[in-house]
Amino acid sequence: MDGSIDNRSVGVVAPQVARFAEPVRLRCGAVIDEYELVFETYGTLNADRSNAILVCHALNASHHAAGQYADDPHNVGWWDNIIGPGKPVDTNRYFVIGVNNLGGCHGSTGPKSVNPRTGRPWGAQFPVVTVEDWVATQARLADHLGIRRFAAVMGGSLGAMQALAWTVMFPERVRHALVIACAPNLSAQNIAFNEVARQAIITDPDFHGGDYYEHGVTPKRGLRVARMVGHITYLSDDEMANKFGRQLKQGRPTYSFDTDFEIESYLRHQGNKFAEYFDANTYLRITKVLDYFDPALDHGGNLARALAPAQARFLVVSFTTDWRFSPDRSREIVTALLHNRHHVTYAEIDAPHGHDAFLLDDARYHRLVAAYLERVAGGIVA
Amino acid sequence: MDGSIDNRSVGVVAPQVARFAEPVRLRCGAVIDEYELVFETYGTLNADRSNAILVCHALNASHHAAGQYADDPHNVGWWDNIIGPGKPVDTNRYFVIGVNNLGGCHGSTGPKSVNPRTGRPWGAQFPVVTVEDWVATQARLADHLGIRRFAAVMGGSLGAMQALAWTVMFPERVRHALVIACAPNLSAQNIAFNEVARQAIITDPDFHGGDYYEHGVTPKRGLRVARMVGHITYLSDDEMANKFGRQLKQGRPTYSFDTDFEIESYLRHQGNKFAEYFDANTYLRITKVLDYFDPALDHGGNLARALAPAQARFLVVSFTTDWRFSPDRSREIVTALLHNRHHVTYAEIDAPHGHDAFLLDDARYHRLVAAYLERVAGGIVA
Repeated sequence: MDGSIDNRSVGVVAPQVARFAEPVRLRCGAVIDEYELVFETYGTLNADRSNAILVCHALNASHHAAGQYADDPHNVGWWDNIIGPGKPVDTNRYFVIGVNNLGGCHGSTGPKSVNPRTGRPWGAQFPVVTVEDWVATQARLADHLGIRRFAAVMGGSLGAMQALAWTVMFPERVRHALVIACAPNLSAQNIAFNEVARQAIITDPDFHGGDYYEHGVTPKRGLRVARMVGHITYLSDDEMANKFGRQLKQGRPTYSFDTDFEIESYLRHQGNKFAEYFDANTYLRITKVLDYFDPALDHGGNLARALAPAQARFLVVSFTTDWRFSPDRSREIVTALLHNRHHVTYAEIDAPHGHDAFLLDDARYHRLVAAYLERVAGGIVA
Repeated sequence: MDGSIDNRSVGVVAPQVARFAEPVRLRCGAVIDEYELVFETYGTLNADRSNAILVCHALNASHHAAGQYADDPHNVGWWDNIIGPGKPVDTNRYFVIGVNNLGGCHGSTGPKSVNPRTGRPWGAQFPVVTVEDWVATQARLADHLGIRRFAAVMGGSLGAMQALAWTVMFPERVRHALVIACAPNLSAQNIAFNEVARQAIITDPDFHGGDYYEHGVTPKRGLRVARMVGHITYLSDDEMANKFGRQLKQGRPTYSFDTDFEIESYLRHQGNKFAEYFDANTYLRITKVLDYFDPALDHGGNLARALAPAQARFLVVSFTTDWRFSPDRSREIVTALLHNRHHVTYAEIDAPHGHDAFLLDDARYHRLVAAYLERVAGGIVA
């Protein structure tokens, strides 16, 4: 297979910027006067603009979903294994859009951007955004690109929450929603992990109440711990056992606080890497986006009623060993959709990798997405 | 029941101190020249000294296992619900000993004690201890008290690991071992959580490489995050959902980083409380004690071979919703014991509380311990 990878890459890509001069009122009540969204596209929009797929990103990813940059060939898109010519999200057929969400730190307007009202970085003043705010601003990007209706909106984890929100906020604009490794809201345990991450960041002396940019520092210690906690929840217990087990780096205990076990090395590495590139204010806000997502809340806790307006057809996918968003949570979504007689395909993939499975190249999972999107393509006039 | 609680308390207790002038060589190679262990006892040692039960503490507990202090009546022992006259660990029958382990922060010699060689607090210089070191020093305490053989050694979680180690380090000194909510070693995921806790502490600027005592500060931020992470692993997902769910403190989102959800409040409260009284250096070492515990390691990974020397009879107890040390892990211990034809009673209690269940007053669990210890008492000449 390795030899064929290049042939199935979208190749060199370049981000684009869309500027929006019309203010957006967020759920929290705050108004952002103007903002930019960074995005990438792969494939070609067809004549009747009916072959667009919006790919929504999860916690730490970005608009860079596929391909690589000319000046940074090692920076491969986060979902490159599923997007490309001949891949499950086939760019020979589809026009695929990746977008960095509002509040992000990869180029879209966010806490580290300059607030035009003050001429200084937003920092702590950047509002707390929500999934619905993201969808609303993504809809403006769709308008900007002349896309009235998406062939599909898709994502995994937090990305899947956006796909779900799209179907009820803009029912007529989504033909299909691919809702992968999702939950209809966070559990108390999920929120607890997010809160630990937030407290690690907020109590880092370099956080400066969120206005660390002006102090020339970043709360790296906090971000590092936050990321380490996150990584524990992305992998299944079994996968961690298989990958790292109790393997000692030096064959025997050091009786010190150096890294003894391989898993410690792995977590420190992930934490350090993340703390170098990710913005703490963005991370804080994204955990809040997750915590707040709860479409049933405005419907007395009735998820079926919340999802009633949807017109899309759904592919819902869960992974057996995902303990962050377990298959039970996906089944809640499926049940609510079926209650409305919406069209749903549900698959529970027997994969060992935990929540991270949605990012990985699992043959059964990829075949499923490929087959589903082939069927979707059948309804497109090319 | 409430009215009868006072009658079943051991009442007012007072800690005692045992001083050991003979050096102890630890597993790591370090030698502690002299040390003190703080302990408490409840009930009366019988004439032939055959009714003693050693209660080993877990992560953050201490020698104060039952009763209350005259000058601090709200400070009730951590296992008071199971130890007392007429309680499952019946002090009318047994002489019960609680001991703060070496390296602790409740009075026994530990990192915040003065190192007699330097005249300054041990701090970073205090060695990394192990379960085996604890058992070796507990054995000296038993000698000090004139107890040749324990009727039982018992504990939950890390306490149970000590009970298990007792049976192989001093087979002839343990008649019964009560091994509750235990594991034969930590999984990669368990180690990962400990490593997050350690990194939170170590990277706190107030940690000063472990020598914070001399700076007049304590790494509270780190301890707080460490404790929050811990608490997530003590409760089951379901129990968290039942206790806290997605309940919003103010009925609606604040769109800020204040506490929105009840679970956030709970974790912050637990973290703050812990950071006020617990010593960070002790916490670091206790997580290492957990990580290193692995009796099978010196036996090519063969747990049965490791447990072969035991002469004790065992009660092994697990709790269905314990995802920190799941019933599977207890069954590994049971299987290894049975392989040696050791006498084992195993019970998997269907309790909703997760790992914390071993500390709680669950009727089936307490009846089981009571029944087992009644049987043990049958073999004692009072």
